[in-house]
Order: sequence, then C-alpha cells, then structure tokens
Amino acid sequence: MARVVVEVMPKPEILDPQGKAISSGLRRLGFDGFTDVRQGKRFELTVDGEATDEVLADVRDAAEKLLSNPVIENVVAVRVEDAGVDAAGAEAGAR
Amino acid sequence: MARVVVEVMPKPEILDPQGKAISSGLRRLGFDGFTDVRQGKRFELTVDGEATDEVLADVRDAAEKLLSNPVIENVVAVRVEDAGVDAAGAEAGAR
Repeated sequence: MARVVVEVMPKPEILDPQGKAISSGLRRLGFDGFTDVRQGKRFELTVDGEATDEVLADVRDAAEKLLSNPVIENVVAVRVEDAGVDAAGAEAGAR
Repeated sequence: MARVVVEVMPKPEILDPQGKAISSGLRRLGFDGFTDVRQGKRFELTVDGEATDEVLADVRDAAEKLLSNPVIENVVAVRVEDAGVDAAGAEAGAR
C-alpha cells in the first residue's frame, strides 16, 4: 500500500476570508510576524499496491474532478508520501 | 518575504466522515484503487524577511495553538516552501 498526498489551495486572486480570520487570530495571540495567511486542503489517499505512474495520473484526475474546485482552487501538489503504509495504519483510519 | 507551509491532519484513530464521503464519491466517479481517504488542512503563512529558526519556532507554536486542535489533530509538517515570495503574490492575496 502507498500513500499519496494531494494539496489544494485557493487561487491567489480569490479572497480568503478564513485566512484573514486566522491572521487576526494570530495577531491576538501575539504572533505579529505573519503578513498573510491562506488556508487550503490536504488529502491523503491510500492506494492498493504501489504508486505507479498510472495511479498518480488517476490521483491527479481525481484531484481535478472531486478534491478541488478548478474555478477557485489550484491543485498545488501531488506526491507519494509513503510507499509502504503498514496495514494497521490504514486499518485504524478505516474504523 | 518567505512562505512557510503548515500541514494538519486528523489523528489516525479519529473517524473521518469527510474522508469516507470522498472515498465513496471517488468510487462513484470510477476511481476504484483508493482504500482510504483522509482530509486535513494546509496553511501558507507569509512572513516578513527570512524564515529563521526563531520564525519557524513561532510557526510551530501558532500551529499548535491556533491552526490545529491538538485533541483530534496532528501537525504533520512545518516547512519553508518559498524563501523569496515576490510582493505582488502576497499583495494579491491580501486584497
């Protein structure tokens, strides 16, 4: 089993109210050094067997079709994170 | 300006209904090879100047205190993604 990570962020030109809220929250907590905060999504997809090029092509396709909204979001990364996820790890997640 | 990425995922033992919904959505779209899907959050924090060790320590602190809920989530990554974010990029985000 392998684990593929997909990262999705709002397009830069899209206003990110959540990011703005986090920015002011950080300032309230005393973290002043951050000029901008943007929040996106991170997915971990566990696949049977190895993360072959074909699997990665499927993941990219799924990322465009389901994991992101191409009108307002960009898929910024698709990468193999762990080639050998032990069954227990995936099992715990499935329960 | 530098950009630091923080990645947060639900703890493995925590049930992830969103991930389950995505899993069945993927199957409906014909993507059958995925045995598990989990969804988390990805943050991009733009910082003034360089991403020094001190800045990264602040980011980790902020990640624990505001960007994640330590009871149900793990901060899985804190990394410098782009040491030299051009001002226009951050400006577009700030508007």
